Amino acid sequence: MEIKRPTLLINTQKCKNNIRKMANKAKRSGVDFRPHFKTHQSHEIAHWFRELGVDQITVSSVTMAQYFALDGWKDITIAFPLNILEIDDVNELAQSISLNILLESKNTLLFAEENLKSEVGVFLKIDAGYHRTGIPIENTNEIDELMHCFSGMRKCHFKGLLVHNGHSYQAISKKEVENIHFDALAKMQALKCKYIQDYPNLILSFGDTPSMSVVNNFEGLDEIRPGNFVFYDLMQSQIGVCTEEEIAIVMACPVVAKHIERNQIVIYGGAVHLSKESVVINNQVVFGKLVFLENNQWIVPSQSYYLCSLSQEHGIVQLDEETMPKIELGQIVGILPVHSCLSADLQNSFVTESSQILLKTHI
Amino acid sequence: MEIKRPTLLINTQKCKNNIRKMANKAKRSGVDFRPHFKTHQSHEIAHWFRELGVDQITVSSVTMAQYFALDGWKDITIAFPLNILEIDDVNELAQSISLNILLESKNTLLFAEENLKSEVGVFLKIDAGYHRTGIPIENTNEIDELMHCFSGMRKCHFKGLLVHNGHSYQAISKKEVENIHFDALAKMQALKCKYIQDYPNLILSFGDTPSMSVVNNFEGLDEIRPGNFVFYDLMQSQIGVCTEEEIAIVMACPVVAKHIERNQIVIYGGAVHLSKESVVINNQVVFGKLVFLENNQWIVPSQSYYLCSLSQEHGIVQLDEETMPKIELGQIVGILPVHSCLSADLQNSFVTESSQILLKTHI
Repeated sequence: MEIKRPTLLINTQKCKNNIRKMANKAKRSGVDFRPHFKTHQSHEIAHWFRELGVDQITVSSVTMAQYFALDGWKDITIAFPLNILEIDDVNELAQSISLNILLESKNTLLFAEENLKSEVGVFLKIDAGYHRTGIPIENTNEIDELMHCFSGMRKCHFKGLLVHNGHSYQAISKKEVENIHFDALAKMQALKCKYIQDYPNLILSFGDTPSMSVVNNFEGLDEIRPGNFVFYDLMQSQIGVCTEEEIAIVMACPVVAKHIERNQIVIYGGAVHLSKESVVINNQVVFGKLVFLENNQWIVPSQSYYLCSLSQEHGIVQLDEETMPKIELGQIVGILPVHSCLSADLQNSFVTESSQILLKTHI
Repeated sequence: MEIKRPTLLINTQKCKNNIRKMANKAKRSGVDFRPHFKTHQSHEIAHWFRELGVDQITVSSVTMAQYFALDGWKDITIAFPLNILEIDDVNELAQSISLNILLESKNTLLFAEENLKSEVGVFLKIDAGYHRTGIPIENTNEIDELMHCFSGMRKCHFKGLLVHNGHSYQAISKKEVENIHFDALAKMQALKCKYIQDYPNLILSFGDTPSMSVVNNFEGLDEIRPGNFVFYDLMQSQIGVCTEEEIAIVMACPVVAKHIERNQIVIYGGAVHLSKESVVINNQVVFGKLVFLENNQWIVPSQSYYLCSLSQEHGIVQLDEETMPKIELGQIVGILPVHSCLSADLQNSFVTESSQILLKTHI
């Protein structure tokens, strides 16, 4: 396949290795593997999970649940606080699949119980330190109150406690990620102990890719829901969670201009292809990292050249005097994305090393 | 129309006013108005320009040129350095419309002359201070060399000098925008003088929305190509280029959680809806600003409440004790986007105040 515009390449071997590694670790640890599919949003990549025996998944929207249900996924958790305006769609989904929803307030729980038409699994979202969503784990009264609501409910079937330690994304070392994980785990296990007698099947579900990648086993958990690990990205390699060689996607971008006076190249590849997500490396704001491409495969150079500026369609890569002559107008270079979830979301397909096109949705 | 998911609303009156104001100023100044359509990417919004007599447009990619050519636009400038890998598409376009391309190097110019099949207008991209693309205006030898190349060329028809003063987006006041504009204008007029005898029809084309909005007239220019002004956004209102009332789009987002302990609400509306673009207001990173909605219309509150955090699907808005009780779960709030070009790019349609759906492409 001839590439002439920004094109998202996938290295299927790297991707499948990432999936296999996580699936094996889950198996060894005896926990359920319910991967988050918001990162790839692709029926075909989903099949690679299915081939390894995965039959439970996580998504981040009702629309995404509909999209995967269409392809035969029968056990889906929507890991996003129930949007009461979508109750009709939730009801429709719950008729045909085993659906779990997430909520964090009594009002939403009461609304769900009143408006659901069939039984739905419910996870309580607990905030163990990220402070995005969830009931703060310290608010024991509030958690207690909600837990008591479940008894006697006919539609809302309590499944467990769900945590996303998203603050691990801000960590600067594996050690820090581990600390975040084990701190949250200890607190959540204490919470589980409190309710296990009433709910012997209570599931403790954790999700973030940094923690799930860094810890050696998932002891103490019942279910893991990482998503980003399927591709990884520069943000993860910066934390130390993966190597740059494990990153499974790059954006292939044509070189459209060279600026010898400042050792920069301009690529056709901007915020509408990669997203405006950035990471700070050596005190510099970075939007991606250059790799060299050959036949849709890439090699990560030992020297780091960064995408230092990004507008709607343009990107600027900072090179040096030595590398400038090696790059030609019309050459295709690769960019390792800072945040693969957002870069993949912007594309309609992935192109494999054998030029196969894997379609995905843009939900 | 019932809104239940993040939905991009457009206020058609505000949008049409923005268009009319810019078109009138261009007319009064006697310059050609060649608006940039990368911001809206919509056939229907494009028609509002056509109704005012606009028949020349600017786009930022070959794909976008194809999309607008399909709807009958016959005079298009692709304001992006020619990507030589797309030469076949350029040739196809040039057969049916009057096409202008942009370039900034001798190699690309020679490639174009050799590979174009019909005559195409060519603008030289000049860098008057932004340092993204273009030949630095100080490099008079390089500019001279390219200008001399045009004589005798049969396919590349020199049209003029094109500047995008994108550094005006970083300005912090109208005064600073004016300084950027008039500084670039003086330099570009000097350059024009140098070549006007050989090219009496040389077009001086300027583009950025901040400058085009702030200056009282376009004296000294031949053509203007602003794009963002069609909607404006928080970035522009922060510079002082527009008022917040002039911003013509908001993202309607359902409220999915309330956190009374920290006076925050969680909305269904994240980076995949708004983009990760941010602006710093009062030393705080901001991803959008809250407005209250009623019947798809909005009122900008006198007090500013900002979207202070953004992940893939979630956004967090910081409120205060007074406002928290006014917001309910399931309520739809509006978010004024930081960068309307990127937010609009992420959506497939706009919804008007009368619930009409204006389709756009996701190119």
